[in-house]
Amino acid sequence: MVQRNKNFAKLHAGYLFPEIGRRRRTFLEQNPDAHVISLGIGNTTEPLTLHIVDGLKNAVVGLGTPEGYSGYDDDARGQALLKNLKSRIAEKWYGGIVDPDEVVVSDGAKPDCGRLQVLFGPDVSVAIQDPAYPVYVDGSVIIGVTGVCDRESGQFDGIVYMRCTPENDFFPDLESLPQTDLIYWCSPNNPTGAVSTREQLEALVEFARRNGSIIIFDAAYSAFVQDEALPRSIFEVEGSREVAVEVNSLSKPVGFAGVRLGWTVVPQELAFDDGTPVLKDWGRIMGTLFNGASNIAQYGALAALDDEGLEEMRQTVGYYMENARIIRQALTELGVTTYGGVNSPYVWAHFAGRDSWDVFEDVLQKAHVVTTPGSGFGPSGAGFIRFSAFGHREDIVEATRRLARVWG
Amino acid sequence: MVQRNKNFAKLHAGYLFPEIGRRRRTFLEQNPDAHVISLGIGNTTEPLTLHIVDGLKNAVVGLGTPEGYSGYDDDARGQALLKNLKSRIAEKWYGGIVDPDEVVVSDGAKPDCGRLQVLFGPDVSVAIQDPAYPVYVDGSVIIGVTGVCDRESGQFDGIVYMRCTPENDFFPDLESLPQTDLIYWCSPNNPTGAVSTREQLEALVEFARRNGSIIIFDAAYSAFVQDEALPRSIFEVEGSREVAVEVNSLSKPVGFAGVRLGWTVVPQELAFDDGTPVLKDWGRIMGTLFNGASNIAQYGALAALDDEGLEEMRQTVGYYMENARIIRQALTELGVTTYGGVNSPYVWAHFAGRDSWDVFEDVLQKAHVVTTPGSGFGPSGAGFIRFSAFGHREDIVEATRRLARVWG
Repeated sequence: MVQRNKNFAKLHAGYLFPEIGRRRRTFLEQNPDAHVISLGIGNTTEPLTLHIVDGLKNAVVGLGTPEGYSGYDDDARGQALLKNLKSRIAEKWYGGIVDPDEVVVSDGAKPDCGRLQVLFGPDVSVAIQDPAYPVYVDGSVIIGVTGVCDRESGQFDGIVYMRCTPENDFFPDLESLPQTDLIYWCSPNNPTGAVSTREQLEALVEFARRNGSIIIFDAAYSAFVQDEALPRSIFEVEGSREVAVEVNSLSKPVGFAGVRLGWTVVPQELAFDDGTPVLKDWGRIMGTLFNGASNIAQYGALAALDDEGLEEMRQTVGYYMENARIIRQALTELGVTTYGGVNSPYVWAHFAGRDSWDVFEDVLQKAHVVTTPGSGFGPSGAGFIRFSAFGHREDIVEATRRLARVWG
Repeated sequence: MVQRNKNFAKLHAGYLFPEIGRRRRTFLEQNPDAHVISLGIGNTTEPLTLHIVDGLKNAVVGLGTPEGYSGYDDDARGQALLKNLKSRIAEKWYGGIVDPDEVVVSDGAKPDCGRLQVLFGPDVSVAIQDPAYPVYVDGSVIIGVTGVCDRESGQFDGIVYMRCTPENDFFPDLESLPQTDLIYWCSPNNPTGAVSTREQLEALVEFARRNGSIIIFDAAYSAFVQDEALPRSIFEVEGSREVAVEVNSLSKPVGFAGVRLGWTVVPQELAFDDGTPVLKDWGRIMGTLFNGASNIAQYGALAALDDEGLEEMRQTVGYYMENARIIRQALTELGVTTYGGVNSPYVWAHFAGRDSWDVFEDVLQKAHVVTTPGSGFGPSGAGFIRFSAFGHREDIVEATRRLARVWG
């Protein structure tokens, strides 16, 4: 029989979010009448907006006509669509600081992270923010970057964990870190909600340049940055083009979590030690293991990134940010210490000395609210739970009201 | 600087289809007035049909309403949609011989092949039909299964090439093959158009059972099988559930090449040597490196797989199969020996002793028709070119008329 890929045995029992789903179902079996509100998985809840729906609808109708049909991205109409979208992203999202040819369109930030892991292969060393979105670690384990997980520390052998907690203002002491090939960096951060300042990103880029590292910058929440002084892209920082790629997504800002549209920016200057442009190998990965984002989603993205679409995006983002404000305020009034939730849709609540899963269960049992236990994001997430601001307003209000049952 | 993934250097210069695109562009630069007809890349050309467009349109309109919106597959509406689609595929596509829980929905067969390669990892041995769709080889190289490519033979060290030519009726002498962990098998075959008979698939399953191999059965063209006696799924063969997975796709039969919807069937009985169900690890791969097929495409697939949609699919398939008949007939009349094109949209034309790229250039220069050189699919494709039956009828007719300039 075929041998199981030895890296799979190293993985934790389950991916974090399915585990939360299991606990939620168990609760509902025991409490069939409970109205559970989910502030756990960061899943978008608000309908697509008018102009974007129109863009999608026109696309679908067009696909039913000889003039509007396209197949794979490589036919004439598919190429034209993709070219438009790359230009639109370069211009409207990045204000022209990246080139359209450097924007590689995909079905989302998470799949792109997985493909980046295939691109870089098993022989790289990796540094990851702790806590972090689970895919950076899990994908690294699957591709063979790591050794086994130490039960005591919860850390995988072969990964450098960059502790990001309130004590260090969610930014590690770079001087204390060893050199690694890759540095995963997420800002606005999932789960802590921390947003790196310009000075911090400058220090990070300088650190990567000194060490010959590549930063994989996850900017999936950049549209939630309200403060003009904070950078929304790593490419706003001088010197970043030689040391960074950026993954991004329309999942959260326009509610495309289900429609699926993202991209990765790979600057032309970024190269491997033998001089091969990373963009060249990335093109090979995308051509071999991927077959293009849904053309319907591409048309939807075009609509989302014109002036009307961008105005709708601001409204959608504003809606979720008001949710975040309500959650933060409620927790603060209940005496809970929180971080994030200002330029990010995640509120990171601190319960010093407590087990995250215990707090998670407490909130689920008493308030019938699903959150995400911080320890699921890494050892330094212990003692925290994450509240997601993605939800209907009435659910958010009701959930915060119920939180008084836990901490009132 | 970061070391380039050592497996990339092993790859051939370019993925086959971009290379064809380059040659086509070069020709057009030199002959700007030429009307080039592409029968190369198997890209669909006919508009989506009425009922399927309606399904997509309703989906898009629904996503703009509180009642119809869904985000990631894991919210209630996303789960319900996915459950419906898995049941529909199990029932309507497979006639109930697979279980809905065994159908894992994705964005297509090619991305699923790539993820299967990540699933099985670098430590497996692999057998591949020669010639074959390039992704089986290229993905295996990228993930680290192979050594370098031998310039003389065109074969990668560490891959068993199963020669499939007219001499052996496109089916290898299994007894002469060594044991491998994985066997990639594509029927109806891309590029040869050969369809394995029931007896052949029974022998293949028996061979896999004896050797402890897993068959990765690519059935992306199964909807093109017209002959009732020929199997459309590996799971029609007894004993296959312990030794096979099947990838499939709506790209070709309903023109979803751009819309993106496919699936992989992983039977519950299929297990690794340590007893771990393959379906379990596949779920982990899909949960970690993927984020669901576009929900719009899922609704479109639901429409494509109800009675009206299936009738439209038969018409679309019939259209392309009539194209195949026209191509076959024209080539035959010109004295060219062909294979395939009867239960498959590909016609495999034989030019014994000639270099495939020379024939490709000959057809391009004289008839302004793009084909695919057989050698691009592997060493045993030398001396063949592939004609794709995907095209507008008038282009197919015009292309076949022009072929007289080459062989008339």
